[in-house]
Amino acid sequence: MPEFDLTRHETFRHWTPVTIRYSDQDAMAHVNNTAIATYVESARTAFIYDLIQRGGVEGMEFILARMTIDYLAEFHYPGAVDVGARLIRFGTKSIGTGYGIFNGETCVATSECVNVFYDMGSRKTLVPPDSVREALEAELSA
Amino acid sequence: MPEFDLTRHETFRHWTPVTIRYSDQDAMAHVNNTAIATYVESARTAFIYDLIQRGGVEGMEFILARMTIDYLAEFHYPGAVDVGARLIRFGTKSIGTGYGIFNGETCVATSECVNVFYDMGSRKTLVPPDSVREALEAELSA
Amino acid sequence: MPEFDLTRHETFRHWTPVTIRYSDQDAMAHVNNTAIATYVESARTAFIYDLIQRGGVEGMEFILARMTIDYLAEFHYPGAVDVGARLIRFGTKSIGTGYGIFNGETCVATSECVNVFYDMGSRKTLVPPDSVREALEAELSA
Amino acid sequence: MPEFDLTRHETFRHWTPVTIRYSDQDAMAHVNNTAIATYVESARTAFIYDLIQRGGVEGMEFILARMTIDYLAEFHYPGAVDVGARLIRFGTKSIGTGYGIFNGETCVATSECVNVFYDMGSRKTLVPPDSVREALEAELSA
Repeated sequence: MPEFDLTRHETFRHWTPVTIRYSDQDAMAHVNNTAIATYVESARTAFIYDLIQRGGVEGMEFILARMTIDYLAEFHYPGAVDVGARLIRFGTKSIGTGYGIFNGETCVATSECVNVFYDMGSRKTLVPPDSVREALEAELSA
Repeated sequence: MPEFDLTRHETFRHWTPVTIRYSDQDAMAHVNNTAIATYVESARTAFIYDLIQRGGVEGMEFILARMTIDYLAEFHYPGAVDVGARLIRFGTKSIGTGYGIFNGETCVATSECVNVFYDMGSRKTLVPPDSVREALEAELSA
Repeated sequence: MPEFDLTRHETFRHWTPVTIRYSDQDAMAHVNNTAIATYVESARTAFIYDLIQRGGVEGMEFILARMTIDYLAEFHYPGAVDVGARLIRFGTKSIGTGYGIFNGETCVATSECVNVFYDMGSRKTLVPPDSVREALEAELSA
Repeated sequence: MPEFDLTRHETFRHWTPVTIRYSDQDAMAHVNNTAIATYVESARTAFIYDLIQRGGVEGMEFILARMTIDYLAEFHYPGAVDVGARLIRFGTKSIGTGYGIFNGETCVATSECVNVFYDMGSRKTLVPPDSVREALEAELSA
């Protein structure tokens, strides 16, 4: 699978804007690390629902199995961030997604997540249909 | 309806402990006002589910219509609060509940909330059955 | 002091956009009441810092003393809200501000807050200088 | 450096209790992944401040550089979790800590974090004094 530099704007075509809230700050007067997890999640849910829709599958979800965040620079309220999202790998039952969180021109954090395909009816993991895999392959090489 | 002093321990018999989190703090290095709203909610949901259960009614919820919080003293991470809850009034379709938030011996905030009886099936407000009203009357005079 | 209808767009000239996050939802699959408190806070801090700056005073803060939120309609992720803010009253040591939270054309909540003038150095309440009162009077009648 | 199984109670001697809040749930009616990040942070700050105190150093902080969370099982409001914390490695300027999040007997998540030693005065990373390294070595082999 290819490697992607998550600190670069050019890596991403899918973007989610998130406004910074006063309550995102902590006692060090910068944005708290757990607030950044909510920024990543906003981008992840938007990006993955978009992927599923392109695969034309209903009743399927992706359950979060792992999240890693690398904190690169502190930043502050007020303002906003733009979160870039892209597919970085996929397996039989899971996908890996990568994120770059930008405050202005600065990449303040990157994240990698693993989600597992999940059937909401049976509450079990599943192997997705070919239509989804084709959408994933097209996305990965885009 | 009777008046209750929400700053006093003796006003409450129903208590919910809540641990303070590092991320509850804000840039002024004290617990943020919106974190206190989550403490009140923890006590409110516990208290109201208890009331409904005593009334023996399934499929009924109380939707939050109004929340007021009075901030009396700043307090800090780490530690915990105890949130006292009690019924302070009720009407045909709604109840009023009162809360005292205590950090050690100090009442750091009080809150009053109004919740409306709600049927989850029809997603409409409703007049609750007599069994619930009797539970409410018993609670108010307790 | 004049009355203001906080459910109407025309009441407000100061606006703060806030993006809705996936984690703002609760188990009822709508935006949780405590998330709305963070939206109000984002607007309140922006609006009040703007007021203080116009008064030309440094080292002064407004401590939140009371917050009331009226929940008018449920709404959902994804999307954004626009929070209108305005001064609705002021006293010797405090100001009252009003907020309308709009999801598209719908006013989903309103809020009233009371903040107390506060000196960060002495950590005490204070009576603000005339320059601030003049800014407040101009704002109230605008 | 030794390996530690973060899914086992016996791995940990330092514990932090955290109460689950209604607002920690998301639209899938289970505890949201970002709430779990706040549980880990509560344990991490408690554990690391304890480490620094044993090293007898003032004005030193550990800045979070990386956080990974593995989500093992869904769990629900109401209730509480116990978060075990321990040192799992350290380098010249950084430490690695591991966490197990337990809901009753079940390990629902594990986490590994990297923190960098940081001087609050100069806002720069630093190499800690020997007293801190000795406390870390004692902790790692305990």
